[in-house]
Amino acid sequence: MSQAVGRLEPLFSPRSVALVGASNDPGKWGFIVLLNLINGRFPGKIYAVNPRQKEILGLQVYHSVAELPETPDLAVILVPLSSILQVIQDCLDKGIKAGVVITAGFAEVGDRGQQMERDMVRLARQGGMVLVGPNCNGIMSTYSRFYCSMLPLYPRRGSLAIISQSGNVAGSVTGEAMSRGLGISRYISSGNEADLHIEDFLEYLEQDEQTKVILSYVEGLQDGRRFLEVARRVTKKKPILMLKAGDTPAGTRAARSHTAALSGSDSIFSAACKQAAIIRVHSMDELVDAGGVFLSQPLPKGNRVGIITRGGGWGVLAADVCARAGLEVAPLGEKTLSELDKYLPPWWTRHNPVDLVAALGANDNNILEVLLCSAEIDGVVILGLATGASVFSNLSSIKSMDDFVLAAVEDFGQSLREVIKLRDHYQKPVVVAMNMPLGGEEAAAKLAALTRETQTVCYTTPHQAAAAYAVLVRYAQYLRYGSDA
Amino acid sequence: MSQAVGRLEPLFSPRSVALVGASNDPGKWGFIVLLNLINGRFPGKIYAVNPRQKEILGLQVYHSVAELPETPDLAVILVPLSSILQVIQDCLDKGIKAGVVITAGFAEVGDRGQQMERDMVRLARQGGMVLVGPNCNGIMSTYSRFYCSMLPLYPRRGSLAIISQSGNVAGSVTGEAMSRGLGISRYISSGNEADLHIEDFLEYLEQDEQTKVILSYVEGLQDGRRFLEVARRVTKKKPILMLKAGDTPAGTRAARSHTAALSGSDSIFSAACKQAAIIRVHSMDELVDAGGVFLSQPLPKGNRVGIITRGGGWGVLAADVCARAGLEVAPLGEKTLSELDKYLPPWWTRHNPVDLVAALGANDNNILEVLLCSAEIDGVVILGLATGASVFSNLSSIKSMDDFVLAAVEDFGQSLREVIKLRDHYQKPVVVAMNMPLGGEEAAAKLAALTRETQTVCYTTPHQAAAAYAVLVRYAQYLRYGSDA
Repeated sequence: MSQAVGRLEPLFSPRSVALVGASNDPGKWGFIVLLNLINGRFPGKIYAVNPRQKEILGLQVYHSVAELPETPDLAVILVPLSSILQVIQDCLDKGIKAGVVITAGFAEVGDRGQQMERDMVRLARQGGMVLVGPNCNGIMSTYSRFYCSMLPLYPRRGSLAIISQSGNVAGSVTGEAMSRGLGISRYISSGNEADLHIEDFLEYLEQDEQTKVILSYVEGLQDGRRFLEVARRVTKKKPILMLKAGDTPAGTRAARSHTAALSGSDSIFSAACKQAAIIRVHSMDELVDAGGVFLSQPLPKGNRVGIITRGGGWGVLAADVCARAGLEVAPLGEKTLSELDKYLPPWWTRHNPVDLVAALGANDNNILEVLLCSAEIDGVVILGLATGASVFSNLSSIKSMDDFVLAAVEDFGQSLREVIKLRDHYQKPVVVAMNMPLGGEEAAAKLAALTRETQTVCYTTPHQAAAAYAVLVRYAQYLRYGSDA
Repeated sequence: MSQAVGRLEPLFSPRSVALVGASNDPGKWGFIVLLNLINGRFPGKIYAVNPRQKEILGLQVYHSVAELPETPDLAVILVPLSSILQVIQDCLDKGIKAGVVITAGFAEVGDRGQQMERDMVRLARQGGMVLVGPNCNGIMSTYSRFYCSMLPLYPRRGSLAIISQSGNVAGSVTGEAMSRGLGISRYISSGNEADLHIEDFLEYLEQDEQTKVILSYVEGLQDGRRFLEVARRVTKKKPILMLKAGDTPAGTRAARSHTAALSGSDSIFSAACKQAAIIRVHSMDELVDAGGVFLSQPLPKGNRVGIITRGGGWGVLAADVCARAGLEVAPLGEKTLSELDKYLPPWWTRHNPVDLVAALGANDNNILEVLLCSAEIDGVVILGLATGASVFSNLSSIKSMDDFVLAAVEDFGQSLREVIKLRDHYQKPVVVAMNMPLGGEEAAAKLAALTRETQTVCYTTPHQAAAAYAVLVRYAQYLRYGSDA
């Protein structure tokens, strides 16, 4: 473990934590963060610190950091701005090596806050203490059951790490991942990044065995050169996906007053990201869509995609998305076409996308295998997997829309498992979408469980599936050809 | 009612319908469409026609159209290709004036099918019968409880009409609308548009009192000139939103084999849409997002938007989306700022977006009212409405994530009703988003019920809310200044 990485270890594997500024007022963040941490069942020691209280949520309260019976690995700081410097000094005196400053009102509000922020960082650095924040909403490490944030979110363990300069974007992305059955490794709301910057967290995640994919939300960079140097190294090992905000004058102004970020010119930023093979996305949903695709898919060997669709329109939309992303919706050779003829009705259109033309008996997996065997295809997008065949043939026994959706999800699960077998056998990626907007809680839970079990995300629109597939191709090209690809 | 419109009336308000090609085999569409129609509780007479069967789903079966005891308003045709011309002739002999041809395998599969399609249309037109399709998945009119499609979808009555050259896109868009609590007026899967074209349906919807907004999916146009003429007229009365597919060479090829559409040059098409004030969107989700915004919002008088956000990052993302769409994230005057100072903590950033800086006590509606009163703002986007205040202050009584989400939805409902009062009082649009990705079935049902009650869509991301708001501005500008706006 490098020295730089070791310094961050107390943030992500703390054995004990002090909440400085804990409160017994349910209307204060000092109460809420403590409650979230307790509800997350952190197995280590939790120390509540407040000069004027005795007990909070059943915990004994210490009146100062100095009074703590041991030196905690980490201090989470929520005190008013005016007490910050004193608290940092107290932490240093106690020998605490890492802090998370949730308190806001620093550089993002103007000159006075900026000065305070500088003083705080200088003090911490002199004493050898690293700081996350200020103006952040917390951090989480699922593998340590350390759920320490302003939001009552308890994601499962998983392989996606989230670094975000906005706490509420971090929360939204986490929630979106959870609702799809995806787990999280680390959650870092980096706030104003007064001390630790995004590049420090990237260095930590580079060597973090729990993290396979890094999702990031960035408003601005303080040390662009070092960021690019680190990012170029990290993307050779794991993909970095980035939602960059503040790419318009109005957004830039908003970013400055949000996290004091200088977001700079978007075109320069785009060129730099390309060099570092960072994959840019344009919304929070896309961040999760694109991140999830890396969890279990083999990387494609080229940019030629086959599309299988249960409905023509979905196929056209997916072909557009693939073509716009520079993929080739590859023509099929006569040998492949004749193989497909065996499984499709005479009026099928003999083109890629392969439209199953609403043929109720068609077996998706025979068709998938033909495409995976074909030399002209590097991977497949399947749209509307399994919604059709066995569900429709049992339609008369189905009494309600809920029954229908549940039967479709069941059917989908079986088909998906077969798809995964074929995918893993042929070592070509297969991205699937099913159309199930009407599913209730039970259907959503089943789909999420299926994703957890298979680590294979099920997309719900042709747009999502094709865009996720395109991201996979882009990253594979980078690993093969470097950033000039 | 114009003659053209009158000809389509049997399609949308049928009192009786014949299903020609009904089947008692649950693996055939002739069974499924009939089952869907029955399950939809169509109040009119349903006649099943099949030359070789006696009873299907409890209905007496007629061996031919000629045998029917009356002339139905409409024939829905699912017979094999080889019988099509005979069936059309039978319908004409019986005096049937309208047909929906679900059967596929016509122009989309090549020259022979194309010839058959031409012959079918010539025959029908000579006899004065209008045809929807072929190669479509059905039509619906919620106000007639006429749910006649291949998909078991039963949307509620509402003001969104869907015209789609793809049946499965029509189904997906309908499902998406339903899951958000939005109702549908008419559902038209127009297929190959051999006889009736999209412009005929637009003319019908122009005068249709049940339809306020038209959502369309288009792969190509057969009579571009007439389409533009009709669209220009319709958009003066109600907005037309369009997802145009096949705008890449790969997509164009896919569209040709899907519905035989010639999608043409995308740049010419874009220019024409702009002239006709058609609002282009780029995914099925956006179609529903943008359509829903017209249901209850007053149109803004200008392009100056105020953004209120519970979290900085959401505000930055929304500002970017607004700015890219040409809106002005308007600077706030000193008077407005001083008014806002009354309701926000001293460290608030005094900028638009107005960031509530995680202040738990802040009252969104006071702040909203200040912006609505301000002369420098034409409308407002609120992000994270009501998730914070009362929910967080009751946090200790909340035992699970489900409880939390339900409390937040409850809270949101109250806030939304107050927002609507203010919106309607000041006659400025207010588009809201809340972040509730973890809601289960109960939360989703409550949100959908709230949308039904208020006809106000609740978006779930800053991107969606800002993009929907921008669409509202664009349409308002068109109505004021024409297509040069």
